[in-house]
Amino acid sequence: MPKPSILPAWLEQPPLAGSRRAIFKWGAPDRWYHPKPGFIRYLNARLGLDSADWGALRDIGAEKVELSSSEILEASHLQALTAIVGPENAQADDFSRVRYACGQSAEEILLLRSGNPPAASGLVLHPRNSDDVRAIVHYCHHHHIPITPFGGGTSVTLGVRSAKGGITLVMRTHMHRVLEFNETNQTITVEPGLLGPEYEACLNQAPERFKARQRYTGGHFPQSFEFSTVGGWIAALGSGQQSSYYGDACDLVLGQSYVTPLGDLATGGYAATATGPKINDLMKGSEGAFGVLTAATLRIFRLLPDNRRRFAFMLPGWQEAAAAAKEISQAEFGMPSMLRISDAEETEAALQIYGLNHPLVDKFFRLRGLLPARRCLLIGQSDGEKHFSRNVARQSKRICRRLGGLGLSGYPAARWAHSRFLDPYMRDDLFDMGILIDTLETAVCWDRLAEVHAGVRAYITSRPRTVCLTHASHFYPQGTNLYFIFITPIMAVAEYRRFVSGIISKILECGGSLSHHHGVGKMMGPFMQRHLGPEQMAALRAVKRHFDPHGIMNPGGTLGLDLGAD
Amino acid sequence: MPKPSILPAWLEQPPLAGSRRAIFKWGAPDRWYHPKPGFIRYLNARLGLDSADWGALRDIGAEKVELSSSEILEASHLQALTAIVGPENAQADDFSRVRYACGQSAEEILLLRSGNPPAASGLVLHPRNSDDVRAIVHYCHHHHIPITPFGGGTSVTLGVRSAKGGITLVMRTHMHRVLEFNETNQTITVEPGLLGPEYEACLNQAPERFKARQRYTGGHFPQSFEFSTVGGWIAALGSGQQSSYYGDACDLVLGQSYVTPLGDLATGGYAATATGPKINDLMKGSEGAFGVLTAATLRIFRLLPDNRRRFAFMLPGWQEAAAAAKEISQAEFGMPSMLRISDAEETEAALQIYGLNHPLVDKFFRLRGLLPARRCLLIGQSDGEKHFSRNVARQSKRICRRLGGLGLSGYPAARWAHSRFLDPYMRDDLFDMGILIDTLETAVCWDRLAEVHAGVRAYITSRPRTVCLTHASHFYPQGTNLYFIFITPIMAVAEYRRFVSGIISKILECGGSLSHHHGVGKMMGPFMQRHLGPEQMAALRAVKRHFDPHGIMNPGGTLGLDLGAD
Repeated sequence: MPKPSILPAWLEQPPLAGSRRAIFKWGAPDRWYHPKPGFIRYLNARLGLDSADWGALRDIGAEKVELSSSEILEASHLQALTAIVGPENAQADDFSRVRYACGQSAEEILLLRSGNPPAASGLVLHPRNSDDVRAIVHYCHHHHIPITPFGGGTSVTLGVRSAKGGITLVMRTHMHRVLEFNETNQTITVEPGLLGPEYEACLNQAPERFKARQRYTGGHFPQSFEFSTVGGWIAALGSGQQSSYYGDACDLVLGQSYVTPLGDLATGGYAATATGPKINDLMKGSEGAFGVLTAATLRIFRLLPDNRRRFAFMLPGWQEAAAAAKEISQAEFGMPSMLRISDAEETEAALQIYGLNHPLVDKFFRLRGLLPARRCLLIGQSDGEKHFSRNVARQSKRICRRLGGLGLSGYPAARWAHSRFLDPYMRDDLFDMGILIDTLETAVCWDRLAEVHAGVRAYITSRPRTVCLTHASHFYPQGTNLYFIFITPIMAVAEYRRFVSGIISKILECGGSLSHHHGVGKMMGPFMQRHLGPEQMAALRAVKRHFDPHGIMNPGGTLGLDLGAD
Repeated sequence: MPKPSILPAWLEQPPLAGSRRAIFKWGAPDRWYHPKPGFIRYLNARLGLDSADWGALRDIGAEKVELSSSEILEASHLQALTAIVGPENAQADDFSRVRYACGQSAEEILLLRSGNPPAASGLVLHPRNSDDVRAIVHYCHHHHIPITPFGGGTSVTLGVRSAKGGITLVMRTHMHRVLEFNETNQTITVEPGLLGPEYEACLNQAPERFKARQRYTGGHFPQSFEFSTVGGWIAALGSGQQSSYYGDACDLVLGQSYVTPLGDLATGGYAATATGPKINDLMKGSEGAFGVLTAATLRIFRLLPDNRRRFAFMLPGWQEAAAAAKEISQAEFGMPSMLRISDAEETEAALQIYGLNHPLVDKFFRLRGLLPARRCLLIGQSDGEKHFSRNVARQSKRICRRLGGLGLSGYPAARWAHSRFLDPYMRDDLFDMGILIDTLETAVCWDRLAEVHAGVRAYITSRPRTVCLTHASHFYPQGTNLYFIFITPIMAVAEYRRFVSGIISKILECGGSLSHHHGVGKMMGPFMQRHLGPEQMAALRAVKRHFDPHGIMNPGGTLGLDLGAD
């Protein structure tokens, strides 16, 4: 009798038009990437599940979105705002109002699955250009109507939630043009609604599109790459998976144009100046709370794919993996373009997921002193000029070997690269089976890495039937980030909120920052004052009041600016 | 009969105590570095001078500083403020009041030489610690008394001018302690009054001083290095001569503590975060207009002097030199730690000054197509890990050769390094002879480099008997800076101001920034609105009002914040 397949019957139908699932399903409607059998076996073992737990689909959100209240905007506002963009670019139906008020946070998914749409704007507008944005912001400022900008909608921090109603501006529909490609300065100026793949394609195809002499890359590849926008990267201070070399979104932005309630603002333009505090920096990370980003000038880099090197090592433990990554980051030979260390739990999961848990492999690891529940995976990649890239890989390998690492060839890094944008698809499958998978992340200085890792991991796993996988993937000479993935059977929003709130508190208590690259949104907003202190918050509020005296820009807790402490 | 020496009789006496010369003389009172004979010959030829012009010393400022008005502060304020720091740390004599209100700008030197002290504070205080600063700022805020912080006093933009009287806080007297050395994070936390050499010595001697495992460098070497403070670097956004690799002051600062009229403020601490706009960035470059910097945490780097490589090339022209520097900056092999291209005029001057203008050398250059009045010198240096540094030098040389450059060995770069902190001493000698030497600098994007260079140079040399030497010395993939040195017989302040004001206007007109690394101070303040636009200025003023509602912090035009446009 053949062994029955361990694989559940995954849902593999595009969401119905207008359904709640059409809002929360990750990525392309007709694309899936299911958990591998090894991952299911891993979860069964760690969460105490068996095949009965993988049977029924729950809360799949197939129903149409329906708002109980039909309240939108006053008719006069509806009419005036619709007139600015034209009726073909204005939507007031229930689905659109909810769809563009939702990001991709677990909270929003749980709410949508349970039939309680989390929030709704009164009207969705798709501005065609900065003139539209200006007219809309001017009108809303005058009439005190809240505005929430929407880029790609991949926020995991309630960044696009229409907490106070009002209107949503969808930037990606029309405002995705390239405004200037400047090969001399190695910059590109784009509208904020440009999606990652199109942005990168422009640069890769610069000779064909702009008659450039070279091919370029933006160097920014967040996990949301395929569905997030350039504007979103800047607004929420994202980091790409190759940030250790190319820099975070923050580092990439040379200039920005905004429409604020106070008026237009254009900043920056030089690589460096000494003309006082930089308003260009002040606007980065403002998450739509100061104004609407309408254009950005970014640094670009030569595309040199032939020079890429990949490497991977198994290290004896977390301490050695962290020491290797720290030494690589501080040794002055340039940074790898990608570097990632997984803790012991994530390493074991990875071995199982990728089918590398063969007894012979395990035996070989053990013989080399690389023991289960201790050993840690490090993967890396270098880019840049040929000799530079080769040296970065060579020196990185030398450091790993010195710390007891066993070289694993470039395969694990290539394997990671293959599925790096696909992993989020698995979330829907797990949620369908009643299993929550979610992430929180933080920045740490090197001297707090061990404490934050141990403390937060202990907190998360103190919850029964909960797995915590952790990695660090953005490196600096002064520190790194920690990325916690937790998997546990929770479907109740209140319980989820309590758990997440506890994790965040633990992160702060151990010395981590409130966010390394997910941003703040309305989810982290309530923790901002505790994290930054009242003095920095007061300064942010002063800037907010300057640009947005009526508090119409992404109100309701964004960055913790309007939470009553004012 | 021996040829009479071309060398003038330079003044070589330490300034008299309390004299005006004691204020403006560069650097150490008992140290001189006179122009070389080649430089005198060069100036004679270019400015139409002869030995008669090098005879008499003029306006050497030997007289004691005397203020015509003895007005200082109200007696009650004098008493209260003196009580905070103790009488041994308070000075109200004429010399101190002028001394600590003066930086090192040509305007201040001209005024001091002509017997018109440029400004005076009412009282000079030397705070012992941040408690003193807090008490002083609190008192002054309450009583609306202007405060001007003074670091090393090397500002060339009237940054320390007590434009509205009040008090000056001298930070370097006591507040030069190391507060924390953190080898794990590769950071150091210091008080702002620490001078460059002491800061660098701490880091170089980290094993002896802090039991560190490695030696470190701050990587920040502005020309004022020996006499400027860490606080000054941050306040005015300085750049060191090795900024292309180590970063500008702006990039080096991880966290700051301020005492503002509103209260204390501590910022930053992580290498990167996504917790909204960064107040740490907002405070950099605030030039004492928001508050008093009391501590800063900076990134440090491993000191690896054995890996240093130096190189130099003569290139056919400015276009080729700029193309070489641009390609080096964009080619993705890491940046040289020092790179400098001199235009044709500066190149000829350098050859003569360094005695490299031998007819045989010249003939050799000509044979290689490197013609006088066209050829341009490029010098460079690489640092970092051994293979990294070697590759940066190797790739840089390859680029220079490809652009028609002739390798000149490492000698010119070593020669430059030898005198890099000495050149400012020559200024006093030239002024003593009635010849003004001054500098202005700007940031440019690559696509404006030629225009700014040609336009500004043409403007400067349109003045009769005026030499303009230009170089670029801070490089980024997106652009560089231009540093204009102009030499001309001017001694009248009004004429000087008109000339300089014209140059600044020309820089802005051609597309340069108002400053790359000298800061703004009260000299560039009047140009800020034109340069940044009213919108960015309004944002800066909003921040200023937040921290300093009574406008007591470095008032009178700093950053152009209180020039009546408010």
